[in-house]
Amino acid sequence: MERFEHGGDVYNIPGIKYDFSISCNPLGIPGPVREALCSHTELYSRYPDTKCRRLRRSISDHLGVPEEMILCGNGSADLINRICSCFRPEKVLVTAPSFSDYQRCTELYGGKVDEYPLHPEDGFLVKSDILDWITEETDIAFLCTPNNPTGQLIGHDLLCDISARCEESGTLFVLDECFLPFTEGRSMLDVIKRFPHTIILRAFTKLYSMAGIRLGHIIGDPGLLEKISPYGGEWSVSIPAQVCGIRALELEPGWTVRTREYVSQEARRMCDRLKALGLEVFPPAANYILVRSPVPLAEPLKSRGILVRNCSNFTVLDEYYIRIGLLDETADGILIDAVKEILDDNR
Amino acid sequence: MERFEHGGDVYNIPGIKYDFSISCNPLGIPGPVREALCSHTELYSRYPDTKCRRLRRSISDHLGVPEEMILCGNGSADLINRICSCFRPEKVLVTAPSFSDYQRCTELYGGKVDEYPLHPEDGFLVKSDILDWITEETDIAFLCTPNNPTGQLIGHDLLCDISARCEESGTLFVLDECFLPFTEGRSMLDVIKRFPHTIILRAFTKLYSMAGIRLGHIIGDPGLLEKISPYGGEWSVSIPAQVCGIRALELEPGWTVRTREYVSQEARRMCDRLKALGLEVFPPAANYILVRSPVPLAEPLKSRGILVRNCSNFTVLDEYYIRIGLLDETADGILIDAVKEILDDNR
Repeated sequence: MERFEHGGDVYNIPGIKYDFSISCNPLGIPGPVREALCSHTELYSRYPDTKCRRLRRSISDHLGVPEEMILCGNGSADLINRICSCFRPEKVLVTAPSFSDYQRCTELYGGKVDEYPLHPEDGFLVKSDILDWITEETDIAFLCTPNNPTGQLIGHDLLCDISARCEESGTLFVLDECFLPFTEGRSMLDVIKRFPHTIILRAFTKLYSMAGIRLGHIIGDPGLLEKISPYGGEWSVSIPAQVCGIRALELEPGWTVRTREYVSQEARRMCDRLKALGLEVFPPAANYILVRSPVPLAEPLKSRGILVRNCSNFTVLDEYYIRIGLLDETADGILIDAVKEILDDNR
Repeated sequence: MERFEHGGDVYNIPGIKYDFSISCNPLGIPGPVREALCSHTELYSRYPDTKCRRLRRSISDHLGVPEEMILCGNGSADLINRICSCFRPEKVLVTAPSFSDYQRCTELYGGKVDEYPLHPEDGFLVKSDILDWITEETDIAFLCTPNNPTGQLIGHDLLCDISARCEESGTLFVLDECFLPFTEGRSMLDVIKRFPHTIILRAFTKLYSMAGIRLGHIIGDPGLLEKISPYGGEWSVSIPAQVCGIRALELEPGWTVRTREYVSQEARRMCDRLKALGLEVFPPAANYILVRSPVPLAEPLKSRGILVRNCSNFTVLDEYYIRIGLLDETADGILIDAVKEILDDNR
């Protein structure tokens, strides 16, 4: 795998029948969102509202934060890029492993990452010693809860300590909560006003399975957002994305409740079945599972038309780790059967 | 108006019934494109192909340039931003007036623009003395043909001279041809291989009236494109945009032919009617008309529910200039009547 390659590139791999390599909501895009997308396509000849006024009003109502604390982007990747382009950080703290785009963008603008290592023997948990890694030289800290690809939440008290530490050191703390709505974890949204150096990253991508449509947002200090905003193209959020985002939020809180029930049940089932095959499973908080196997699985699964996230290009991890995004019982069962076959072949 | 404000912000202005402030194809989004957009919405839960492989193949077939010379972006504004973010030019040549995003992006990354002035008494034509403005200190030259908002083409021979000059001076020449398909003007595409410092900017926005969907592309030296590409977010081109782009190109060459016929007829009609009202009209090559009036028109038109592009924030121009994007005979007639009323009120 290339250094910053992601999952989901089904376009370049012929014959994929099941894609477990991405980690969107297994319930798919909500039907009403797809209907909204197609209901006024004649309006797509207009330019988008660059300020996403209606969408930000909906997000504001939904999250209970003022509109001026919300900036929308062309997916969270656009916003990570804008943050790095704006601040050109020299020194950035990330965990290893984590979503590789934090590192890619840091290096693109000339910075370097410090990698706080997560250990399999600790279940990949972030611990309080991470506070010692945040110094006055740390320009940005990117953390992800639950972390991608490991699946563990960072405790709320520790997050508050990290935010407080970042206030002292003048570090911008970007907390990626893209997967948080799948879990029972507590958001930092309700305390963010106490920590003006903390920015929360969210996306519609995962929860509403809208990865192809591109919509993400950050929540934080209005002055900070005003600085970050110009570092993307004008009109960066398409009208389809704005329409879908507004409609998606009208489905709440029901959609999130239904998703959590489905995901926690399916995750439990899959964890049990993977363990029964003798694989090491790291207890997931969200809709994907990190698995360590005695033999590499990604390539033999691919040759069976099944794509999983090969974790060999994540620091700390190697080709014995895969990340499995949950689909449905039938598809998940087909994956289990294929894994069993591969393990049997290697015995 | 704010310094870099654009047309098309109907979201912030209540009661607009006719929007002439943008300059998309008056034929609207092609029906088959709207159908394609809505035909497989379940696929929008995937991540987009970051490399836009199928779309680039279609563009390659359509334009007759190799795929590796094509880079797609989230609208041409995304690509202008990426170019400036990548090269951080100190000195940039633009014409005054022109599309303001060249200047906005230049200044965002710390550079300054040199403004080659276009004069109303010359019909806003770019002349050969522009060659003297391109020196070894010019990092980038952004030119637009036909120019926005003035509507005049730059002659092909002059463009070749500019490209040759930029080869000598080591200047990156970004030629914006977003409006060129509306005209009979000759593209630089067929000579671009001779000029590795020349990049051509194109968009689906205008010709297929897809401003809300966001899709643009640049054509140029593969090595240059590889440098520019990372300076946007990953997955920057949504799946809806890729689907629409592929379908739009299947409608060629018919769509462009039909568009040109419609636009040239409607432009002729409107020019005649505007002149009959005593306004100064700059002969348009494309689907929008620059007009100078003895009294400011933008605000009184707005109060009648009609939005035109107030040109007061373009260098060289002032509040007596407006840009009119063509719509259809009926709407265009309503605009003419309203202008007549305003002129009569001021007599």
